[in-house]
Amino acid sequence: MSRHAIHLEKAIDELKRLILSLGTDVEESARLAVQSLTQRDSDLAKRVIEADYEIDQREVYVEEECLKILALHQPVANDLRLIIAILKINNDLERIGDLSVNIAERAVYLSTEAKVELPFDLQNMAKKVRSMLKRSLDSLVNRDEKLARKVCEDDDAVDDLNREMYGCVAQAIKKDSNNLNSYIQLLSASRYLERMADHATNIAEDVIYLVTGEIIRHGSKTEEAEF
Amino acid sequence: MSRHAIHLEKAIDELKRLILSLGTDVEESARLAVQSLTQRDSDLAKRVIEADYEIDQREVYVEEECLKILALHQPVANDLRLIIAILKINNDLERIGDLSVNIAERAVYLSTEAKVELPFDLQNMAKKVRSMLKRSLDSLVNRDEKLARKVCEDDDAVDDLNREMYGCVAQAIKKDSNNLNSYIQLLSASRYLERMADHATNIAEDVIYLVTGEIIRHGSKTEEAEF
Repeated sequence: MSRHAIHLEKAIDELKRLILSLGTDVEESARLAVQSLTQRDSDLAKRVIEADYEIDQREVYVEEECLKILALHQPVANDLRLIIAILKINNDLERIGDLSVNIAERAVYLSTEAKVELPFDLQNMAKKVRSMLKRSLDSLVNRDEKLARKVCEDDDAVDDLNREMYGCVAQAIKKDSNNLNSYIQLLSASRYLERMADHATNIAEDVIYLVTGEIIRHGSKTEEAEF
Repeated sequence: MSRHAIHLEKAIDELKRLILSLGTDVEESARLAVQSLTQRDSDLAKRVIEADYEIDQREVYVEEECLKILALHQPVANDLRLIIAILKINNDLERIGDLSVNIAERAVYLSTEAKVELPFDLQNMAKKVRSMLKRSLDSLVNRDEKLARKVCEDDDAVDDLNREMYGCVAQAIKKDSNNLNSYIQLLSASRYLERMADHATNIAEDVIYLVTGEIIRHGSKTEEAEF
């Protein structure tokens, strides 16, 4: 292996490490955002909102590193595809971070309102979404097509949960229209989780393309018409 | 100018042409989606949904072209930045296309339900969003930082409209909870428009970075806590 190839390999390994570490922190941010909502903890929510600044900075750093590698090493074929995939995945991670902020903002609002009950387990939904995110990144690092396909399949389950949440909220509003705002905010939180799952699916689709050359994105990205 | 540089310049010009043409069609798709909703025209809505397949194919094509240029011409500095910006903008355009599909799906649903009235001009909101999209692409082609900044500013106006829509819907539901579903669907449409404006803002922010090197993304991308 030439010295140039060794340098490129090292740079790509470092890039993978960066994106994985960003993914781990974005996942944690999503966990804490939902926790702040369900536990009505506005201090925690505010910490999630503030911490997003660092996530944003790291996304910028990863993008700069990708550009540096493209300019310095001028990779082709598989290496080029991998770096472009990481550029896109980096973007998805940053947007998941933004969605955690959106959830945390709902948590701040809801902590000042009367508590409303909903027969829906938002933390369970969030757990599923975080698992999708984690596995999508694992599939990237291990070039694991099978795992990536599993993530894409799981997106339907999260869509179903979002619809279930919608049913719960619609029923609740009919019975108790005084707390309309709070219910709509809770519904927003569920939608944000569903959008996080879409981003995890984007990541998995990029991995499938990277490994097999098969384009499967644009499949089930749109929401169902009945909701 | 070397033969290599001339080839690269031609390839980049063709790329700009492709992204502009995609942008025009995405803008038209957004227009028709909102028209199908306000005119309760489910045939038009279905055409918007079907036409998205072609938009998706073209996004894939643009990405392939970007990768080809990176591999064949190995551009550096400004050219490299431009191609990466186009890759990202391409992605934003595809997602705007998806949001048009989401709106059209709502239109299909609403066309089967009783008509509800809302004192809110969704078409006016859509017009503002399409103007943002158009100007963001103009700012790319003309490397017009000032125009790009104007697009970013306009995002706040669209956020305000979305909040206004929310107020209208909340009031309507309180008065007429029988048509809850329809109102929530209309609210979704307004949110989809607001997300389109976010994508146009992303594009403008990429242009500002391209022209000035200044990173201004991650500014006002999250929604306000009160809604």
